[in-house]
Amino acid sequence: MEKYTGKAIFKGVAIGRILFYGKQENTVKRSKIEDTAAEIQRYEDARKKSIEQLNSLYTDAVKKVGEENAAIFEVHAMLLDDDDFNDSVHNMIETQKVNAEYAAAVTGENFSRMFAEMDDEYFKARSADMKDISERVISVLTGKETNYTFDEPVIIAADDLMPSETVQLDKDKVLAFVTKFGSANSHTAILARTMNIPALINVPVTPDWDGKMAIVDGHTGTFYIDPDEETVKDMQAKREKDLEARRLLQELKGKENISLDGQKINLFANIGSLADVGSVLQNDGGGIGLFRSEFIYIGRDTMPTEEEQFSVYKTVAENMAGKKVIIRTLDIGADKQVDYLGLEKEDNPALGFRAIRICLTKPEIFKTQLRAIYRASVFGRISIMYPMITSVEEVEEIQKIVTQVKAELDADGIPYGEVEQGIMIETPAAAVISDELAKMVDFFSIGTNDLTQYTLAMDRQNDKLDRFYNSHHKAILRLIQKVVENGHAGGAWVGICGELGADTSLTETFLQMGVDELSVSPSMILPVRDAIRKSHAKKA
Amino acid sequence: MEKYTGKAIFKGVAIGRILFYGKQENTVKRSKIEDTAAEIQRYEDARKKSIEQLNSLYTDAVKKVGEENAAIFEVHAMLLDDDDFNDSVHNMIETQKVNAEYAAAVTGENFSRMFAEMDDEYFKARSADMKDISERVISVLTGKETNYTFDEPVIIAADDLMPSETVQLDKDKVLAFVTKFGSANSHTAILARTMNIPALINVPVTPDWDGKMAIVDGHTGTFYIDPDEETVKDMQAKREKDLEARRLLQELKGKENISLDGQKINLFANIGSLADVGSVLQNDGGGIGLFRSEFIYIGRDTMPTEEEQFSVYKTVAENMAGKKVIIRTLDIGADKQVDYLGLEKEDNPALGFRAIRICLTKPEIFKTQLRAIYRASVFGRISIMYPMITSVEEVEEIQKIVTQVKAELDADGIPYGEVEQGIMIETPAAAVISDELAKMVDFFSIGTNDLTQYTLAMDRQNDKLDRFYNSHHKAILRLIQKVVENGHAGGAWVGICGELGADTSLTETFLQMGVDELSVSPSMILPVRDAIRKSHAKKA
Repeated sequence: MEKYTGKAIFKGVAIGRILFYGKQENTVKRSKIEDTAAEIQRYEDARKKSIEQLNSLYTDAVKKVGEENAAIFEVHAMLLDDDDFNDSVHNMIETQKVNAEYAAAVTGENFSRMFAEMDDEYFKARSADMKDISERVISVLTGKETNYTFDEPVIIAADDLMPSETVQLDKDKVLAFVTKFGSANSHTAILARTMNIPALINVPVTPDWDGKMAIVDGHTGTFYIDPDEETVKDMQAKREKDLEARRLLQELKGKENISLDGQKINLFANIGSLADVGSVLQNDGGGIGLFRSEFIYIGRDTMPTEEEQFSVYKTVAENMAGKKVIIRTLDIGADKQVDYLGLEKEDNPALGFRAIRICLTKPEIFKTQLRAIYRASVFGRISIMYPMITSVEEVEEIQKIVTQVKAELDADGIPYGEVEQGIMIETPAAAVISDELAKMVDFFSIGTNDLTQYTLAMDRQNDKLDRFYNSHHKAILRLIQKVVENGHAGGAWVGICGELGADTSLTETFLQMGVDELSVSPSMILPVRDAIRKSHAKKA
Repeated sequence: MEKYTGKAIFKGVAIGRILFYGKQENTVKRSKIEDTAAEIQRYEDARKKSIEQLNSLYTDAVKKVGEENAAIFEVHAMLLDDDDFNDSVHNMIETQKVNAEYAAAVTGENFSRMFAEMDDEYFKARSADMKDISERVISVLTGKETNYTFDEPVIIAADDLMPSETVQLDKDKVLAFVTKFGSANSHTAILARTMNIPALINVPVTPDWDGKMAIVDGHTGTFYIDPDEETVKDMQAKREKDLEARRLLQELKGKENISLDGQKINLFANIGSLADVGSVLQNDGGGIGLFRSEFIYIGRDTMPTEEEQFSVYKTVAENMAGKKVIIRTLDIGADKQVDYLGLEKEDNPALGFRAIRICLTKPEIFKTQLRAIYRASVFGRISIMYPMITSVEEVEEIQKIVTQVKAELDADGIPYGEVEQGIMIETPAAAVISDELAKMVDFFSIGTNDLTQYTLAMDRQNDKLDRFYNSHHKAILRLIQKVVENGHAGGAWVGICGELGADTSLTETFLQMGVDELSVSPSMILPVRDAIRKSHAKKA
């Protein structure tokens, strides 16, 4: 038995065989060809087939993981339409009389290296994409396509997993993820949490583990290879306990979110795509506490029209059938970018031109979204909240625009419902002046991710700060407490929609603070309900 | 008379002739040469002379504007020693039989374009440098060197001014700056404030203004060209008033920093180089409230040794002759980088691996600095403060390291004095838990620049946020008030060393809050003293 310790990303126990998931590098041989025109045609056929594959992967992925995660396939299809790339391949075939595989491989290498050398994160990312697309074309040419499905459920072990790879996995057959690289906020980590399966990072994975029996203990971060009988027995018992706990959670469906001493709290869900709505209902979410509207804007070439937006908001409102849906207005900028807005690169995007700052600077974008939301408001129970607020003046400016939008709808004879108005409390400034802001809005939603990052002055994606970053920092808890007090004094209800809201070690603390709502990822609704039902809302 | 409005960066009135300051682009003609060896020699001679010029500019600039601002000349000298660049020039002369001027111009263009296309801020900056150095060599070759001195005092008008240009200006002959581009935090703006002369930005400067009479009104942001008689009279009167005010300020030398109702406050200075010490004494500073130790680390290839650091700290302590000198430990990272630390590029450097986070992660660097400071402490009255603190744990870790350093000095028999220990309050986290931190240290120094940037979640260098950025935001003033109260309750005195400390519209507010010390740039000492002496420390 071998034993390794990694960093656990998601709890749970998995027992099964390891599948080492390394990209099969196509070994390409250079060979001389005579009929260059025919060879170029071979390349063109393979390229077209690759684009078809990518398009169908995209359609499939949008359904399974949402538009944002699927976008990578669209990018790859686009890159395969790039003239520079294709001209280079054609040119090599023609002038050097080489086979299409070789020409594609060398061109892929060249473009990849060129991008990699640019010393710019965006282009570095493109570098991997160039290799991805040339590999795909070569696979089609050689007929050796990577198999992303397996017969029996496996523990996936890999150096790291790219979005383009995980999306193609047969999710029903994945027991756990174990990777060498990655961080607590990496793509694999997020996927594991979404899929409810254990995951470890920082494990010294090697290809020769492939096929071995193994156990992932996501509680302790331990990875056992060729486990002995006793360990297997222990772990099976642990796994049974997990499953039992999960079964018990299922029994919580339909139950109230009520503490031992009778205090009720709303338990809503965060969503980032239309596909998530099903998962909210399935997990018995009481509403949608954070509808991230960015997915409507991302992964396309032009601004979504009012009509397109309206149709999305209407669908969600109708599907939630009278349950509250809180739509957050566009929170683009920082790590989420769209090309058609033409935003410049910034030195510190997290402290930059983003969210409400863009909307107030470009009111035409903002007004289109507000009009679409208001129009959809007659089809369900919609609220709006505004991200990245720092001042009273910003809220006043928003209110003026909302009044305009409503007046325009009135003039057009278009009906709209009562729409509750709220703001995100995610800058320290907003928390500190929350007494004044509370009088201006119906509710607050505390975005703990950003609030923590600004309060500690630490980018939470920056792994060099891991030893300093503390999501339970006393300053954060004090600010939350203050915001709840100020919100209530000013007549606004107060929710939490950041990751801290799903941290069950804090559920009792939040109840005691008087938080009115917690909005968490759909898979965390039942665990948080469980924690609520085991808490005392009044301090002993 | 023409009249333009710009953004005023520094108050005051200037009347004089405009000097349009455009880089004289050398028009270079291509000519055929026969003796390529002689031409290469001509290039080499010009290159060597250029390097000599740069070295002497560097030495001169270090004295006048400090090492940090002078570093540009060292960089240029280095670039002129770059093999790729010189090989390209030699090669062109040899193979194309062209004159050295032409070869240098084309090579400069090529390298500049190459860097410009890299879509990376660092390389973009290098792009301008490549043109700078080729222009310099061409000037030497043609004997047409740019004249940076003028006979009569002038108003400098330009598109924008580069550090390498302003450093060469004959400062006694500059009445004001007027530029088309730049921001309130740009190099020109900082220089104007240091030089105490009016400056406007965002004025539509054109070359044909050169030689015209003009007036800069830095109070209203107005720029008059060919002013009429009445305007000249009005402005002369305004200027007299300014000068009178300045004379009155000089009379404040030697006077106490005391409010109308008898409350005293310490008025110290911020320094960023050894050269600033003279300016502190000349402006009657009561001590140094912020000694930015970065200049010792910047603009060199290796870490400064303990001995080198000791010598700098000792010099400052001795020159301040018993007045307090508060040394801030290394605050590198974010926008201040040094190559030899090998720090990686970060997505959000302002929220990244910087200041105390580097020092606690690499304690060998930190200990060297602390040892040097402690050793220097017997030569004057030295205090230490630590930047970017967010938690009690960080302060505990620092205290452990300080104890170690003192024990090692004891073991070596090296004497040291009493060294007051303080921390910067510049993260919202530190402000919020300042009650706990106050019990651990002797003093707080509030860094308002960073505190504001994190509290508002706005990079203050990002000009797209200008309309949202408010340095007088209520949240900031509330946090400062809270820090003062918590500091005093915990037994720590509280100072302000950010730019807000020099904002005379807040001086009375700070006195009323009970702030114990203000540390400002040397040129602001007397204006702030004036404001203190006109304030009431008790609210009416």
